[in-house]
Amino acid sequence: SKSTPSKFANVNFGDRGMSLEEELNDSNTYYLENDIAVIHKKPTPIQIVKVDYPSRSAAVIREAYFKHASTTDYNGVYRGRYLDFEAKETKSKTAFPLKNFHDHQIEHMRQCLKQDGICFVIIRFATLGRLFLLKATDLFTYWDHQVDGGRKSIPLPDIEQLAAELKYHINPLIPYLEAVDNLIDG
Amino acid sequence: SKSTPSKFANVNFGDRGMSLEEELNDSNTYYLENDIAVIHKKPTPIQIVKVDYPSRSAAVIREAYFKHASTTDYNGVYRGRYLDFEAKETKSKTAFPLKNFHDHQIEHMRQCLKQDGICFVIIRFATLGRLFLLKATDLFTYWDHQVDGGRKSIPLPDIEQLAAELKYHINPLIPYLEAVDNLIDG
Ligand SMILES: [Mg+2]
Ligand SMILES: [Mg+2]
Repeated sequence: SKSTPSKFANVNFGDRGMSLEEELNDSNTYYLENDIAVIHKKPTPIQIVKVDYPSRSAAVIREAYFKHASTTDYNGVYRGRYLDFEAKETKSKTAFPLKNFHDHQIEHMRQCLKQDGICFVIIRFATLGRLFLLKATDLFTYWDHQVDGGRKSIPLPDIEQLAAELKYHINPLIPYLEAVDNLIDG
Repeated sequence: SKSTPSKFANVNFGDRGMSLEEELNDSNTYYLENDIAVIHKKPTPIQIVKVDYPSRSAAVIREAYFKHASTTDYNGVYRGRYLDFEAKETKSKTAFPLKNFHDHQIEHMRQCLKQDGICFVIIRFATLGRLFLLKATDLFTYWDHQVDGGRKSIPLPDIEQLAAELKYHINPLIPYLEAVDNLIDG
């Protein structure tokens, strides 16, 4: 077994989409500080097994494990509406692999949709540097078809047609709420 | 320093309101399974410092610390609306101490209210076995007055007048969404 140094302290070990997450967190900070929306990334759930309580200092977790989240990573409120989404990246240049999503995330988005929440995924083709916002209902089409023996990924041309492409910007870095406006108003 | 045994694995060490939280989690499970609302408790945020990766088994967190949450504990979606709340208990029989709430929780609820979220606190007088749902705006009145030299707690008679009393029930154990209906419709 090997140990990671403390510079990894802020890293979300459970997720591949690291830098996309950082960009979204940065965008969410902009939206928060400008009273536009309140969207936070949920903390990674941890199963704590052992905690030390040194005298005169903070409790130290000495044994713990990463758990699977029962929800998506992001949620919050915008224009009075509940927003819920997951962010994922792929290195593929041609299609977005459905294995990036988990059953419980799909199920959670279905539950939120029943309550009239706004649910979507933000997906990045890292190699192409392209970013899309895809409605959860469009993701479900491919997800359900996969279960019935369909393909295991969403072809890029389908995404180009169905999703809103997001272009990097300054303040916020990823102006994804513009695409959400279209989901709400469209 | 002393260690806790593994039976504490599921305990949220950061919170005093343990059994109230369990009751709310149970109620939220009922609401979720009956397609009434999707409300989850957020995981406790942890600052991870050191992780071991034993070969052939799961990563083990070997050094980590509890962090202060930047939000409230619960949020989700109900009737298309964003819900956000904190749950707290007191042993006092006469008043609810404001020190149970933290600046960042108050600030978070103010931010959510600006986006038209439904924000409140569920407070329990543990000794009296009484439970109330108090609107965030009513909490703010006392919070802001405290800062201006006012009293450091909310008297029970004021809570009886301002808040909705919640009575324990079966399925759900705490039927707090009935009081939320009044916030939305009232
Ligand atoms: Mg994730
Ligand atoms: Mg709490």
